Amino acid sequence: MISRSDCLARDAADTLAPLREQFDLPAGVIYLDGNSLGARPKAALTRATEVIAKEWGKDLITSWNSAGWFEMPKRLGDRLAPLVGAKPGEVVVTDTTSINLFKALAAALHAQSHTGRKVIVTERSNFPTDIYMAQGLTSWLDRGYQVKLVDSPEQLQTAINADTAVVMLTHVNYRTGYQHDMAATSALAHQHGALAVWDLAHSAGAVPLDLHADGADFAVGCTYKYLNGGPGSPAFIWVPERNQDKFSHPLSGWWGHANPFAMAPDFAPTKGIGRALCGTQPVTSLAMVECGLDVFAQTSMQAVRTKSLALTDLFIALVEQRCPNHPLGLVTPREHARRGSQVSFTHPYGYAVMQALIARGVIGDYREPEIMRFGFTPLYTSFADVWDAVEILKQILDDKAYDITAARGAVT
Amino acid sequence: MISRSDCLARDAADTLAPLREQFDLPAGVIYLDGNSLGARPKAALTRATEVIAKEWGKDLITSWNSAGWFEMPKRLGDRLAPLVGAKPGEVVVTDTTSINLFKALAAALHAQSHTGRKVIVTERSNFPTDIYMAQGLTSWLDRGYQVKLVDSPEQLQTAINADTAVVMLTHVNYRTGYQHDMAATSALAHQHGALAVWDLAHSAGAVPLDLHADGADFAVGCTYKYLNGGPGSPAFIWVPERNQDKFSHPLSGWWGHANPFAMAPDFAPTKGIGRALCGTQPVTSLAMVECGLDVFAQTSMQAVRTKSLALTDLFIALVEQRCPNHPLGLVTPREHARRGSQVSFTHPYGYAVMQALIARGVIGDYREPEIMRFGFTPLYTSFADVWDAVEILKQILDDKAYDITAARGAVT
Repeated sequence: MISRSDCLARDAADTLAPLREQFDLPAGVIYLDGNSLGARPKAALTRATEVIAKEWGKDLITSWNSAGWFEMPKRLGDRLAPLVGAKPGEVVVTDTTSINLFKALAAALHAQSHTGRKVIVTERSNFPTDIYMAQGLTSWLDRGYQVKLVDSPEQLQTAINADTAVVMLTHVNYRTGYQHDMAATSALAHQHGALAVWDLAHSAGAVPLDLHADGADFAVGCTYKYLNGGPGSPAFIWVPERNQDKFSHPLSGWWGHANPFAMAPDFAPTKGIGRALCGTQPVTSLAMVECGLDVFAQTSMQAVRTKSLALTDLFIALVEQRCPNHPLGLVTPREHARRGSQVSFTHPYGYAVMQALIARGVIGDYREPEIMRFGFTPLYTSFADVWDAVEILKQILDDKAYDITAARGAVT
Repeated sequence: MISRSDCLARDAADTLAPLREQFDLPAGVIYLDGNSLGARPKAALTRATEVIAKEWGKDLITSWNSAGWFEMPKRLGDRLAPLVGAKPGEVVVTDTTSINLFKALAAALHAQSHTGRKVIVTERSNFPTDIYMAQGLTSWLDRGYQVKLVDSPEQLQTAINADTAVVMLTHVNYRTGYQHDMAATSALAHQHGALAVWDLAHSAGAVPLDLHADGADFAVGCTYKYLNGGPGSPAFIWVPERNQDKFSHPLSGWWGHANPFAMAPDFAPTKGIGRALCGTQPVTSLAMVECGLDVFAQTSMQAVRTKSLALTDLFIALVEQRCPNHPLGLVTPREHARRGSQVSFTHPYGYAVMQALIARGVIGDYREPEIMRFGFTPLYTSFADVWDAVEILKQILDDKAYDITAARGAVT
């Protein structure tokens, strides 16, 4: 049996534990929702103040050059690159995940246009905006493209075939925490002549990634979850050097032009990753992304992953040890290789139980149907946090201290 | 002859003069580049600190509801609406101007798809990203669409015809400050069966707008210029209520879904202006937009316009009075109805002269070819500023105190 003392001992031995001091976390809260909105690096307020008071307020327009605003999407992309196995000059931080996915999908279809392949394969359980963007792109192109939805990872084996133009998957599922085998699935796509587009929303900063080795063709991701960039901070897009010359997409704005200040009337894409840019970026929100990356620079994704698996293993074990007689169903894979950095349990009153947890300071979230989702971010979550969260869950369940009549609102 | 005393007297009588105190402007600077990046409302730092320290840092994920983050694009849109003659529920602040123009153009082409019209008419002198986005959209649709460029506003009379699907114009030209007659041009478009899409980047907060009365069909604009929203703050898009049901575009992300948290696998657009949304917005940059709008709420666009014309009239008069023997060419129309809130002069060494002005604290900017651009923002620019700016320009020109060998860099 695991005890709270065991958890405290593990915290004492945890080399990542000191990083928690770099985050602002409210007292009395166990925050298990960093997979939705990462906690605030303390440095973010300092950085934002510098941008607003000095760079904007004092230096005004000159900051586009003197403060490096123009170069920030590329500079931050280069800083993010090592976390996903990308090379310098392959990532930009810009726009939203949805918009970046649109660019990547469009470029992938463009690269396949000579093949006559018409099908984008993805999962019905993918985060909906990914499916919606694929639907939006293909229905507008109106050339017989289809979005084919599979109902399980296993179905990919038969769904991917000679008609497949693109396999578009979210690497770690937002509800279940299931992690695809990127190398095997990319290889499967390539074997059938398809391209592999990966959404890393729940992977970047959560699990080690090696996009080159794992055969990804394009990827996008989010900076406001595990990367702690701040609410709605701009997303990222990865285009490997080998695919940059053929990276063509319809969102051809001036930031992607070879010479934006020549003000030429015809679009000519710049060389390199810059052609994934479109318009002017929200500088203050963008600048804060660096504060999250600064924390990652003090450790390694391997260290983060080791602790992440220890935290999620512990959470699963403690829930099963301490809440054995409650109707909780583990949704997240037990197999390490198939698990992201979250644990999801179903409960018939999952929504009400999560509301009760939040009221007692354990912040997770809820996703239809019946899924309570707990995200574990090794940079600021302790083993004692896991113990305490499970203890509160146990009390709520034992006491039936949740309101089963609670109306389901917009739980994020 | 106008004297500095005259300018001081006008400042003393200026009812907008007290608003300057609400902006943080560096000492020793005359800022005539608010048409590129508006100055900082002092309140912006307070607002950002609240978002970062409290809403993000303390309230974390709950702020999507409790701090109104989800509703912010619509709420700020409603606050911006009166400045452009829009109704509540017709504007959202979101994404970039380029991306919003893509949505508006796509929706306009969609609305015209049953007509067989294939031509988008715009100006060669339009801000390039507008042309590039039209080129990106039409070349991807690959259905015979064309972007037709005219070389003068007069050519619109013949260029707009029965083949025209959309007339897409920037209301006030970024280089020249020329202001189109929105009512007449929209009417011309409609007379030929075309739709009128307006880019208000250099109009919103600069000149009074009445989108409904002037017959616009869709519009987009920028919040970081005259609206003082902060560097790269999210742009806006206007879809009049009458066009919202047919507002269909390919960037169909989850924020535009009728029920985003149902996580349904098929896109179903929400009713109303929400369907112009796509993905998660950069909250900190977005929140600061409100600080600029708060200043406008203390005056009227008519008062702003009256002072704007007085400032630009004064600048033109003083340049002509005090620099008569220099090769300066007025590019901006003298006619009030055709002038935005900027004045542009050509000079054979325009780039070098502007660099010299900036070095002496007069911040304007430069646009190819040979154009020195001076923006006048009545909320924080005084009549004495205009006098002093012209005096410094006169000294630089009289003394030839500019470096004609200066390499042209990325002047913004």
